[in-house]
Amino acid sequence: MDVIDVILTKRDGGELSDEQIAWVVPAYTEGLVAEEQMSALAMAILLNGMTRREIATWTETMIRTGERMNWSVLDRPTTDKHSTGGVGDKITLPLAPVVAACGAAVPQLSGRGLGHTGGTLDKLESIPGWRASLSNAEMLQVLQETGAVVCAAGSGLAPADKKLYALRDVTGTVESIPLIASSIMSKKIAEGTGALVLDVKVGSGAFMKTTDQAAELARTMVDLGTDAGVRTVALLTAMDRPLGRAIGNAVEVAESVEVLAGGGPADVVELTITLAREMLAGAGLGGGKDPAEALRDGSAMDVWRRMISAQGGDPDAPLPVANETYVVKAPATGVLTRLDALGTGVAAWRLGAGRARKEDPVSFGAGIICHAKPGDEVREGEPLLTLYADEPARFERALADLSGAVEVTPGGKPDLLPLIIDRIG
Amino acid sequence: MDVIDVILTKRDGGELSDEQIAWVVPAYTEGLVAEEQMSALAMAILLNGMTRREIATWTETMIRTGERMNWSVLDRPTTDKHSTGGVGDKITLPLAPVVAACGAAVPQLSGRGLGHTGGTLDKLESIPGWRASLSNAEMLQVLQETGAVVCAAGSGLAPADKKLYALRDVTGTVESIPLIASSIMSKKIAEGTGALVLDVKVGSGAFMKTTDQAAELARTMVDLGTDAGVRTVALLTAMDRPLGRAIGNAVEVAESVEVLAGGGPADVVELTITLAREMLAGAGLGGGKDPAEALRDGSAMDVWRRMISAQGGDPDAPLPVANETYVVKAPATGVLTRLDALGTGVAAWRLGAGRARKEDPVSFGAGIICHAKPGDEVREGEPLLTLYADEPARFERALADLSGAVEVTPGGKPDLLPLIIDRIG
Repeated sequence: MDVIDVILTKRDGGELSDEQIAWVVPAYTEGLVAEEQMSALAMAILLNGMTRREIATWTETMIRTGERMNWSVLDRPTTDKHSTGGVGDKITLPLAPVVAACGAAVPQLSGRGLGHTGGTLDKLESIPGWRASLSNAEMLQVLQETGAVVCAAGSGLAPADKKLYALRDVTGTVESIPLIASSIMSKKIAEGTGALVLDVKVGSGAFMKTTDQAAELARTMVDLGTDAGVRTVALLTAMDRPLGRAIGNAVEVAESVEVLAGGGPADVVELTITLAREMLAGAGLGGGKDPAEALRDGSAMDVWRRMISAQGGDPDAPLPVANETYVVKAPATGVLTRLDALGTGVAAWRLGAGRARKEDPVSFGAGIICHAKPGDEVREGEPLLTLYADEPARFERALADLSGAVEVTPGGKPDLLPLIIDRIG
Repeated sequence: MDVIDVILTKRDGGELSDEQIAWVVPAYTEGLVAEEQMSALAMAILLNGMTRREIATWTETMIRTGERMNWSVLDRPTTDKHSTGGVGDKITLPLAPVVAACGAAVPQLSGRGLGHTGGTLDKLESIPGWRASLSNAEMLQVLQETGAVVCAAGSGLAPADKKLYALRDVTGTVESIPLIASSIMSKKIAEGTGALVLDVKVGSGAFMKTTDQAAELARTMVDLGTDAGVRTVALLTAMDRPLGRAIGNAVEVAESVEVLAGGGPADVVELTITLAREMLAGAGLGGGKDPAEALRDGSAMDVWRRMISAQGGDPDAPLPVANETYVVKAPATGVLTRLDALGTGVAAWRLGAGRARKEDPVSFGAGIICHAKPGDEVREGEPLLTLYADEPARFERALADLSGAVEVTPGGKPDLLPLIIDRIG
């Protein structure tokens, strides 16, 4: 097998054979195919696409470069959720305990934030003592004791994807639906979940800016999961404005605890319940306890407290608070017609909630609280947003990012995507 | 300037700005842009193309990464030829002396063969004592003494191209007209010639398989030369069959000497004279001595002998002869309707005349003599080709490569490209 032939096949618009894929992916992982050869192939894939068969073989091959986890010793069915990432997207935090409280097991391997989208692990790490890194044995133990575990993926899972993702990141080859789909699904399939719900975000704050792109990505991932024997559905959900009122790390944990206590913003509650019902249906528990009930009766909160404790966290400890605050006031009286997800996400990132490079630390206390949501009436001079940062020098840059993100129109009406746009699967 | 932005611009079908090109090419040459980043960019260029302005800036920038030679101290105008490479293409050998004999100076930087196409330097090195590497001062001295010099390009000329070519070779990004054109023209413009004739080969044995592709490459290169102040024209010429009767190294030198002695195959003579007239016209010497006269009166042969001697070669020394021969006989009586350039070129390469990797040596005596040319009548059992190799083990593989390359049809007529297909410029 010759790597140049593989590159030329895709460059000239052809279909890679199963043999070519089964050779090139491990050969790259082992260093037999050079970085510059894989980047040329990745660019050819980005520009010329891949068929469903090619994407499936590519994904399977990436999985086979590492271990595939197995949860068959558990006495309950496994189910998981993956979000393509957004602003204020803390849904995993209330969702995993809710689903566990309704009888399924949730073995979730999560990631950290990069750029303006937050990461679940960063949020949970703002809880004093909580740790993200677990061995496979520890992961199983937490899952057996509490029904839910959220932790970092070990290096043994799809190492090909890890290497390829780092390469794509520096070669302008990230935005390829076949490569995005196979990257996400190789990790989720290797994670060993029996059912999977994909939350594919759409809008300015999401990776996919349009419903069409998001639907294509969702369809590709649902096919991959289904072909691999994982019961998979996808929801397309709104990311044109932030989800909930809190954007950051500790502030999102606090909002999640409100939801688990039976309160919290309506959109976070609705999305949590909708995704939980899909996860339970995938696990064959559709007729059992309803997620809304688990939020009302405190059983989800009980799982949350046990889950946090099992990973060394103190669910009663005070959360980190930023040193400095800055209040953005409503510029006029009227309706908040625009609160842009990208603008607020980038602002929260600038405030310190996110990182520019993988090795950067995040500020747990930094972020934004939105006092109004799009569609709300506001009065000139009233607090609209509170910004949190550890150093006051960060406010100026964040305010610049917010400048086009907020709009108040007297008698206006926001043009928003529906929270749940579509269901695919 | 960020390399990812440059890659994304081209990936998404945009035009690179002069600033982007002027930054990325030297940054790559200096190692600030990684190999995997340049290969992704090269693939995006291959698939999405470049405008005339982009190609011109890319070429100029590659030239500026090294030195640009200057021949203004000479008392005659400079003119050169570049061939895109073919089988049996020894034209530079008689051509440079002919043009010098007619009053122009020919400062030709040449290359070595790779794969089935031969290299001028490999051919000349079969002359005992001749050396390809000259300093700039030696090059000027040979040019002043003899009117023509053919030698290896030093490392100071367009180093960006050298690095980029090696990368393209291993990443499936060779076959891009903008990248081929800028690679060739950066070296030819840096060489400092005042006029340039491009011999763009078309057919199975050439890089460009169709007249349309060749015309596009020719037009691109003529534009680049013209924009850089070099009087440039291109001829599209036939490479569906070998040029002349000899394919190899020493055998091609011998055939070139025949041409310089006033004999030789008609196609080699015709192409030499046609290209020489174009080179002289470009140099402003169109009304002077005619190339056909220089072949008849021995003046071209005189320049050849002085040129070879000036680079250490002995024009009277016997040329290397291969140890073994094998005669391929005509399979039937009829007309030789097919003698394929690619098949014969690959066979000569297998016999040892070419190299598979840059560091391999070539066999000077290996090659093929064609006793008949397409259109000739042949009789069953008569010698058709004589193969030359240093080890008899090489014949079997060469014969396999020749199996589809030769066809004799009773009463047939070959379907050949005209020797000179078109003129552009």
